Amino acid sequence: MKMNKLQSFKNLQKLGKKAPDLSADLDFNLRASRFQASHGPWTFYYSTERVTDPIMENLCLLAREADVFRKMQNLVDLKVMNYIYGCPSENRRVGHTAIRCEGCKEHSHDALKAYSDYSLEMTKLEQFCQKADKFESIIVIGIGGSYLGTKAVYNCLKPFRKGNKKLYFASNVDPDKLTSIVLKVKLSSTLVLVISKSGSTLEVHAQEKFLRNLYQEHHLKSSDHFACVTEKNSPLDSKSDFMEVFYLQDYIGGRFSVSSMVGAVPIALTCGLDIFRDFLQGMHNMDHHALEEKNPLQNLPLLGALLGIWNRNFLNCDTFAVIPYSTAMNKWTLHLQQLFMESNGKQVCKEDGSLITEYDTCPVVWGTVGTEGQHSYYQCIHQGTRVIPVEFVGFKESQLHQDQMIDGTTNQQKLLANMFAQSIALARGQKTSNNNNRLFPGNRPSHILLADELSPYTLGALLAYYEHYVAFQGFIWDVNSFDQEGVQLGKLLANNLIDGYRHINEGRSYVAPKENSLNQFYLELTLPRPRERRRETRKSA
Amino acid sequence: MKMNKLQSFKNLQKLGKKAPDLSADLDFNLRASRFQASHGPWTFYYSTERVTDPIMENLCLLAREADVFRKMQNLVDLKVMNYIYGCPSENRRVGHTAIRCEGCKEHSHDALKAYSDYSLEMTKLEQFCQKADKFESIIVIGIGGSYLGTKAVYNCLKPFRKGNKKLYFASNVDPDKLTSIVLKVKLSSTLVLVISKSGSTLEVHAQEKFLRNLYQEHHLKSSDHFACVTEKNSPLDSKSDFMEVFYLQDYIGGRFSVSSMVGAVPIALTCGLDIFRDFLQGMHNMDHHALEEKNPLQNLPLLGALLGIWNRNFLNCDTFAVIPYSTAMNKWTLHLQQLFMESNGKQVCKEDGSLITEYDTCPVVWGTVGTEGQHSYYQCIHQGTRVIPVEFVGFKESQLHQDQMIDGTTNQQKLLANMFAQSIALARGQKTSNNNNRLFPGNRPSHILLADELSPYTLGALLAYYEHYVAFQGFIWDVNSFDQEGVQLGKLLANNLIDGYRHINEGRSYVAPKENSLNQFYLELTLPRPRERRRETRKSA
Repeated sequence: MKMNKLQSFKNLQKLGKKAPDLSADLDFNLRASRFQASHGPWTFYYSTERVTDPIMENLCLLAREADVFRKMQNLVDLKVMNYIYGCPSENRRVGHTAIRCEGCKEHSHDALKAYSDYSLEMTKLEQFCQKADKFESIIVIGIGGSYLGTKAVYNCLKPFRKGNKKLYFASNVDPDKLTSIVLKVKLSSTLVLVISKSGSTLEVHAQEKFLRNLYQEHHLKSSDHFACVTEKNSPLDSKSDFMEVFYLQDYIGGRFSVSSMVGAVPIALTCGLDIFRDFLQGMHNMDHHALEEKNPLQNLPLLGALLGIWNRNFLNCDTFAVIPYSTAMNKWTLHLQQLFMESNGKQVCKEDGSLITEYDTCPVVWGTVGTEGQHSYYQCIHQGTRVIPVEFVGFKESQLHQDQMIDGTTNQQKLLANMFAQSIALARGQKTSNNNNRLFPGNRPSHILLADELSPYTLGALLAYYEHYVAFQGFIWDVNSFDQEGVQLGKLLANNLIDGYRHINEGRSYVAPKENSLNQFYLELTLPRPRERRRETRKSA
Repeated sequence: MKMNKLQSFKNLQKLGKKAPDLSADLDFNLRASRFQASHGPWTFYYSTERVTDPIMENLCLLAREADVFRKMQNLVDLKVMNYIYGCPSENRRVGHTAIRCEGCKEHSHDALKAYSDYSLEMTKLEQFCQKADKFESIIVIGIGGSYLGTKAVYNCLKPFRKGNKKLYFASNVDPDKLTSIVLKVKLSSTLVLVISKSGSTLEVHAQEKFLRNLYQEHHLKSSDHFACVTEKNSPLDSKSDFMEVFYLQDYIGGRFSVSSMVGAVPIALTCGLDIFRDFLQGMHNMDHHALEEKNPLQNLPLLGALLGIWNRNFLNCDTFAVIPYSTAMNKWTLHLQQLFMESNGKQVCKEDGSLITEYDTCPVVWGTVGTEGQHSYYQCIHQGTRVIPVEFVGFKESQLHQDQMIDGTTNQQKLLANMFAQSIALARGQKTSNNNNRLFPGNRPSHILLADELSPYTLGALLAYYEHYVAFQGFIWDVNSFDQEGVQLGKLLANNLIDGYRHINEGRSYVAPKENSLNQFYLELTLPRPRERRRETRKSA
């Protein structure tokens, strides 16, 4: 049901008009002890959100009215959750939690089957890790869901690498991308991991060919250097072309695929399977919490989702900044952009296929690591004309344990002090009587997620937190978080243009359909200059 | 004067209500030939913006009414442009264009003096490059304006490096950041470049000490390995501590400092001074264009600024995505976030110090490179509930000239085809009668900046394009684009918290002021656990 039809929506609209002013004299001592929740390694502090008890009660009602736990149970049980009533849609199950339900006897038959299929792949991976240990570098060819999450996670797990193994991501059809990677590796000691669920992604296909040509030029047999992750029977599923083919089930969506072979193979090859299993344990722990903790105020991903909706729909904030105070998490928000915006950047109601015009769905999700952002865009967060809610993520201790005491404090303490200070400054602001330029309006919401240390387990729990955060928001907005029809039109038009280039390259004439006069315009702009073509094009496939 | 008091503002408000619908049957052939502008290496295509001739005429009027060319002339002439009437403010000159005004006889005496001061530093740099050529790695310690722009530029210029020189950026007080860099370099062949205009930035100071301690531990004399860029007489300005001290004038703001010694030293050390000079030439060329091309429809940075204001203030778009279709530009948008949001994320009117409540200023600026974003957040751009204007940046040819012909087209052609296709898809959309999930509303604005190839000169022109874009928008919104008061409160509160940690580390008690009860709360949360302190803290300074 559309969110605006719920009783809690109406209540919250009223409450939104008299939301508390964080820059007024609130009792933050009381709020801080009251507005927090913990699970596993993570604690969530939200005294600096613009909420009161009645607001939180109505957000809880919103969750109940939207029946979020029944929907989450369906997801965990591997029921068909990727659908829209009244529209032709993918009608698929959604299984990223099922594959990590180790030891969960109470799960559905289908979920246990998914777990057992996954376990087979994990066994293959265990053997493959031995065979592939000889490779020093691994190049992942994959884009979007096939790499962003893995890259974010890998950056956090770098200190756990075995030896000096390096992982590269060739995520873009831009020829400069692959070329710059190839300049850094020795092809003979490199494994190429091609990742595409459909096995037909344009970028992946073009790059695989590009690299196979290079291997051939160097008289190396590419099938001794290539492995892949794909769906069974996809165009990539060809054992003779690869050392190994790892399977991905149709119920694993790209942006939710880090725990599948998409993440498992590259992480296990660089950090070892044990580290990946610790990470999975952390995810599983948060999965269980998301489903079983029925009090929304204690359920971390649901709490996050509800506060996000409060800021988005009732306080009218257009964007959401996620700012981890940890250098290792420098790619984290890029994965969240995908996870949030591809899942819930939607406008079709799941219940009946109608357009949602009554409320906004996913905001723009952005951010980089702190303290760097403080010296960049924080000016706008503090004094810009629009309010930007912030989620801070921090750790009590540094990851590498190589801190120093400088001027009486460790640098990790300086880092934490900055994170806390920003949250407080955004909330409290600073009033001045005579200088508007030093006026900080305050009353800008944020919250903090805090853990002891960035370990594989803690990281897994955090990733699952966001996966469920997104699912809960989708349940409440009543959109289908699991498809991505919005990327199809661009693909189609790009193929038309590529077809145009192909015609021209082959010396044939090409005229774009009349309704696509811009195609013709841009094609002609960028015709290859005949004399230069030979220099640039090293090889014909 | 506040923008809303201008006649053109009122006209544009009316026009905003009947802006053209890009998904209707517009004559895109005509629009494409009409709505474009070129200068130097760059052409700007904007037929896919929601504009008409009357709208463009009124945007031109807006520029004239806001007197943007007089203001730009003042900036170039090094007059005091960093001020707010009626508020105590920095009252400084703004000189980032003056230092690159080579050969410009018509400039003011002050500007020529600035250029000549800069030339002295360049001469020092030329000599220093020879002396420092022995270093294989360079670590820049700097944050915000002292590194983001340089990093964005360096990533684009990597193919022009001399030999295998590597540049690292220790941009965060997070101890993991420096530690992970130190693991990659040999201290004995590393130059540390400390960059801080004020010479008192917390992060920079803490990291400089951290590294000097390491040099001492390794029995290396740090003054033989350290150089710095700072303002004369800052706490860093100490010749005995550094191989060389490069000066930055007070009229160079951090986010506008790439062309100063902040960018010159690291780029010259890695790529050579000639490459940096090519880059400067490109900037200078765009400076001249921004000032001298008085037709706003032909003045690229002004045209960009006006379209940005059209989308922001009259079509009510909250964010602005900049998406380069070039892997080398993967840090570009992070610099733009800073440049745009720190400059114009403001709410105080420059004319009289009053608060601007009548219109919004800087939007959130975000984005990553294409085609990667297509597999991530584009879902939301195409089908989300809010409209996100996009600036695409592309090149006809790849930078590294190592392309292949695959399936009848080069990968660069595939890359370009995708960029063009996205712009067209956003504009045209796709109507369906029976499936809302395949409905693309279209009418979503974007434009394309296109050049032949990513060279130092082209890049310099592009960076200056954005610097002037930001300045023009600031002139029109009537905010002071050149200060950053909004970062002060967070700094102050962080220092309070750091003071708290220091007290506790020293075994003294600490009680935060009563109005800062959250300080106390967070401090107590993160007290060092006594047993672990020794393990983590390697060294006392």
